[in-house]
Formats: sequence, C-alpha cells, structure tokens
Amino acid sequence: MPVGTVLVTGGTGYIGSFTTLALLDAGYDVVIVDSLYNSSKVALDRIELLAGRRPDFYQIDITDEKALDEVFAKHPAIDSVIHFAALKAKSSVIPLEYYRVNVGGSIALLQSMTRNNVTNIVFSSSATVYGDATRFPNMIPIPEHCPIGPTNTYGRTKSMIEDVITDYINAQRNNLEKEGKPFQQWNGALLRYFNPCGAHPSGIMGEDPQGIPFNLLPLLGQVATGQREKLLVYGDDYPSRDGTAIRDYIHVVDLARGHLVALNYLRANQPGVKAWNLGSGRGSTVFEIVKAFSTVVGRDLKYEVVARRAGDVLDLTANPTLANTELNWKTELTMEKACEDLWRWVSNNPQGYRQEPPAELLAAVKKA
Amino acid sequence: MPVGTVLVTGGTGYIGSFTTLALLDAGYDVVIVDSLYNSSKVALDRIELLAGRRPDFYQIDITDEKALDEVFAKHPAIDSVIHFAALKAKSSVIPLEYYRVNVGGSIALLQSMTRNNVTNIVFSSSATVYGDATRFPNMIPIPEHCPIGPTNTYGRTKSMIEDVITDYINAQRNNLEKEGKPFQQWNGALLRYFNPCGAHPSGIMGEDPQGIPFNLLPLLGQVATGQREKLLVYGDDYPSRDGTAIRDYIHVVDLARGHLVALNYLRANQPGVKAWNLGSGRGSTVFEIVKAFSTVVGRDLKYEVVARRAGDVLDLTANPTLANTELNWKTELTMEKACEDLWRWVSNNPQGYRQEPPAELLAAVKKA
Repeated sequence: MPVGTVLVTGGTGYIGSFTTLALLDAGYDVVIVDSLYNSSKVALDRIELLAGRRPDFYQIDITDEKALDEVFAKHPAIDSVIHFAALKAKSSVIPLEYYRVNVGGSIALLQSMTRNNVTNIVFSSSATVYGDATRFPNMIPIPEHCPIGPTNTYGRTKSMIEDVITDYINAQRNNLEKEGKPFQQWNGALLRYFNPCGAHPSGIMGEDPQGIPFNLLPLLGQVATGQREKLLVYGDDYPSRDGTAIRDYIHVVDLARGHLVALNYLRANQPGVKAWNLGSGRGSTVFEIVKAFSTVVGRDLKYEVVARRAGDVLDLTANPTLANTELNWKTELTMEKACEDLWRWVSNNPQGYRQEPPAELLAAVKKA
Repeated sequence: MPVGTVLVTGGTGYIGSFTTLALLDAGYDVVIVDSLYNSSKVALDRIELLAGRRPDFYQIDITDEKALDEVFAKHPAIDSVIHFAALKAKSSVIPLEYYRVNVGGSIALLQSMTRNNVTNIVFSSSATVYGDATRFPNMIPIPEHCPIGPTNTYGRTKSMIEDVITDYINAQRNNLEKEGKPFQQWNGALLRYFNPCGAHPSGIMGEDPQGIPFNLLPLLGQVATGQREKLLVYGDDYPSRDGTAIRDYIHVVDLARGHLVALNYLRANQPGVKAWNLGSGRGSTVFEIVKAFSTVVGRDLKYEVVARRAGDVLDLTANPTLANTELNWKTELTMEKACEDLWRWVSNNPQGYRQEPPAELLAAVKKA
C-alpha cells in the first residue's frame, strides 16, 4: 500500500522531478501532469531509473480544467496536490500569458480539486514575493512575516496565487463552521524558496531549461562547458562584502525533501494554510559562487561585470527558523556540494536531456 | 458620426448604466456586454428613455473569450473599453469565484482586446485597494501614491487586475520599443473610486441590487421605505468626530462623468497606464449620512449600533487632486444632493427595476 497518492503538476520540471523522486522514495504513488512547455519526458525515465518505479504521466495544460477533472477521475486515490506548473522566464515580456497560466491555472486547479474532494495543496511559491526586503529594518535574513512586495511580474503571480489559496482555504473553513457541517478541512503549504541549484549526485538528473538559462549556476555551467563565452555579473556596486548581490542557494535535493515534509505535515496536522521559507539561512555573493564553482571545475571561469538589472535586490537570504522548528526540516547539503553535483550533471549532459549521458553513469545507477 | 465607439462591460449595472448614459450624451456609441448576474435589462430601457438612443447589448459572461471576440468582430468601430464587469458582494464567502470572474475575466478581456486591436481600457478599480490607509502617517486624505494593501478578497481582486493591466501595458510599450516597431500605444486608466451613491435626478434610474444591499445608503433607503426595520451601524467607537467610520461619498452622476473624462484623456494624450482617485475629498461619518438622509425623508430613521466588522477601516477619504488637475474633473454634486436623488429613486421604485415607476415620472422624462 502506498503512503498516499499525490498529483504533481509540473512534475517533469526541475524541482518537480526531484520532488517526484523524493515522494516515490518515501512510498507515495505519484501522478504527474505537465504541458512539457519547458521540460522533457526524459525526466520520467531518469526518475524511474533512480526510484525503481515510474510515475503516471499526462501531458495536459494546467489551465485545462476538463483534462484535470479526467485525471482526478482516473486516479480516485489522489488525496493531495503539489503544484509547480507555471511559466518562469520572460515574465516582463509576456506578462499577460503569465497571469493567464500561473494565476488562471491555479484557479482552475483549485476548482478541479474542489469538484474531486482533494483538499491538500502544497504550492511552489518563491522568495521573490518579498521583493526588496532590505527596505525594512531587521528583515534580513527574511522571516515569513516580512511584508510582501514583489518587484516583477513573476513574483506578482506567485503572490497572487498565495492570496487565492489563502482566501479560499480560510473561506472553506469559515463557511463550513457557519453551516455547522462536518469539516472537510482544506490545508495549504505556501513554500517560498530561495535559489534552487545543484543536481542529482548520480549525474543523470538535473535542470534542463529550454533556451537560455535564467539563473546564475546554470549560466556558469555553460561557461564551464564552453557553450557560453563568459558570465555577466549584474552589478558589483552593491553594499555587500564584495559588491555583488547576495542569494541563499539551496540544493534541489534538500528542496525536494522540503516539499515531502510539508506534505506530511499537512496530512498529519491539518493546519489550514501556512507559509514556510525553504532556504539555508546562509547567503552567498555572486563572486563567492563563481569561486566555488571554479574550484570544482579546476580553473578560473570568465566573467564580466555589467550594470545592475532593474528589479534586482541586494540580499535575499532566508530565515528558515519556522521550517526548521515546525517541519523539522533544514538543509543538509552545502552550496559547495551543489556546485559539485551541478558540474557532474552539466559536464556529462551538456545538452541536458536531449542527449544520453555516458553509459557508465547509467550503468552505475542500474547497479546501485 | 459618433465621437468613438466604446465597449462597456457590466454596462447594465449601477455605475455602468450611468457611465453609458454619460457616453451617449457625449456623442459616443456604446456596446454593452453584461451577464445580468446582478443587474437588469430594464436599465437599457431607462438609458434609452434618458439618452434618446439605445446602446447595443449582448448577454455574455466576461470570462467567455469567444463571445467577446464575436462582439468585437461585429463592432469593428470599438476603439476603447470601459471595464466594470465583476462580482462585488460576498467575496469572503466565495473567493475562488471572485478570482475566477474578476481576475480571470479581466485577463480574458485583455486577450480579446489584443486580438482585436483595441488598446484603450478604463478600469473600474476601487478605493478598497488602499486597505487601511490610516496605518501610514499623512496618508489621509488618500493620494494615489499611498501603498496598496487591500484587506479583503474584493479589494485584492481589484488590486490584482490593476497589476495585470499595468504590467501588460508597460510590457507592450517596452516590447514595441525594443523591436523598433511603429507604436500601437496601449493606454489604461485605473479609476479608484470611493463610495458611489445617489441616483438619476429624474427618479427613473438608480441602483438595483439583487438580494440584500451591501452599502450604507441603499440600506438606509430600505429603512425609509419600510422594507427594513433598522440600519445596523458597525461600530461607534472609531476615533472619528462622532465615533463612526468616515467615507467619501460620491454622486454616481459625477462618477460616470469621471469615466467619460478619463476615456477622453486616454484618447487625447496616450499616457500609458495611470491611476486616479475619484472622490470628493470630503469625508462623512455614518451618523452624518443617517442625519442627511433623515432630513431628506423628513423623519428619523431607526438604527442600532453593533460591533465593528472585520476588515472595516476608520477613514477612506480621497485626495482627488490628481484627477482635479490632470483630468480637469471634480465632483459637482454634494452628498446631500445624492441623498435627495436616492430618496426620489427608492420612494418611487421600492422594487427597483422589477416594477414600473409612477407614470408621471416617465412622462416627465419623455417630455423633456
């Protein structure tokens, strides 16, 4: 008997695939829905190889309520949803599409969950909902009660979805109380995570962005493999220890485990809706990341300092105390370990999932 | 030749019907779409009687993109949209439906406008986007730069739609500039209005809420007509001059004219996206409203003081300077005049549009 059955939206994406793996390893059955807009079905093969079991998979769009209803109908054992499906790059260029897919898709999902009596949702939010927390005294590292104030469209979609889930879950509770009905308690975890990075230590599963990568470490990976001439460092005139911006890098394996423990917490404690930061509490500058990754690669990586980007902020470091104490979760893998695992991934899979890794890597996984 | 052709969403509702009348009087052609979920087609008859022309009308839901496309296709002369269509009561009970209709409907509208090259939108926002402005020093009366912080789902939907429109219009501008393309400039007016009230001075057009009214003056109207035993006053322990909460009441005829001048401003000045408060700048307490309306009715109206409501705030008074100077608009009708017109409306139409007003009122309009 599985521990439970979880629908993972966006389950072939970067964090979605690692969370699926963590769920399978913990004894859950997993059903994935994903549009494959920014991910690959090969992720399913790698999950199967590592977990020994393959999740069910449906290629559907998160805005397609009818298709969602059909998946729930086919899998009546689903009792919870972990919701990753969203657009995540170019939000300043195509904002309306972001609002349609991210916000509209989340509303469609909640409606479909309601019709199908699925009442636990773990939502993939983001530290970007805080915007520039440095504008408040004493808010670095950032606690969950820091005022929300996203500075770009992506962050605004995440903040809006948090509001939608929060208002909906609170209303469900109030309405049922008023009607004196036996309580089908809805529960929601809003997981605000900082900078996910790293890859599976086996070297066969990692981030596979379509097009130009968006984040520092994948870009550095491309410099190391020769696919990119140099890294652009946006600003070295921040008031930090070396002038570059500070972020909290969290290994994707730790992050996936964070989703698992949040789901377990919802199922065990029925807390209603709650927000948790998932971060290490340790901030690293851009130059520190460049140095750590260069050490792993064994040579200096070329970079060029250019002007700051609009909307970028000095410091996004988590205060993870709440997740540490309530979820009994903390990061176990360092930023340096993430650099090692990332290098194993990109050096063996420079084309991501579009090309098989060396046979000995796959053989080592099969043997283990 | 009409001045232009305007699509009015929610055009049979309270503010929508008065704005339609103002547009027709100013020489615009008007096409209305409305679901009639919370309004009546009789409003179209009264508009026709007062304006001498009837707007085109389609009963469609704002979330139905295909139906919107068909309306734009049938009326290629439409160059602007005034967007009222939204749910406006019970947001705490059915929040998901609010997010679906209000936010989802606005996204659907913007997409349909894009496909049909209609690039001016006047959006019916609300002063509730400010939430409790009294938490900031020097923000009463409230200027447009007051930080946004809605305290209920209705306000959050309005604030989200403002963000969607703002991000979309700014992105359209940036994208076209980058591509060096000739500029189809999008323009948006975010009209944050305070407490609309009053009715048409003829006594044949006014607010006709389905079910229990939500706002102070319609409730008082029902007390005056005997349909309601007494008014509930939510809190007399606010730090105001008489202990009751302060609001900025704006006559619906002034408000409708505000929409007209904002539309004219967008068409003449191509300003991109801008927010304007529409209010009088004069705050009235609940007790002052009760007194003013009682004076009009000619007798004391029964009320009972009960506890404050969650989410209510002490003071929502507009600083209307920006609209005064930029739009050359200011309120011309007082709160006392709104009370007079409201009393003429409710005393002659206690059942709203479900019953004809006295024949002499209709005859007077026809004669004039």
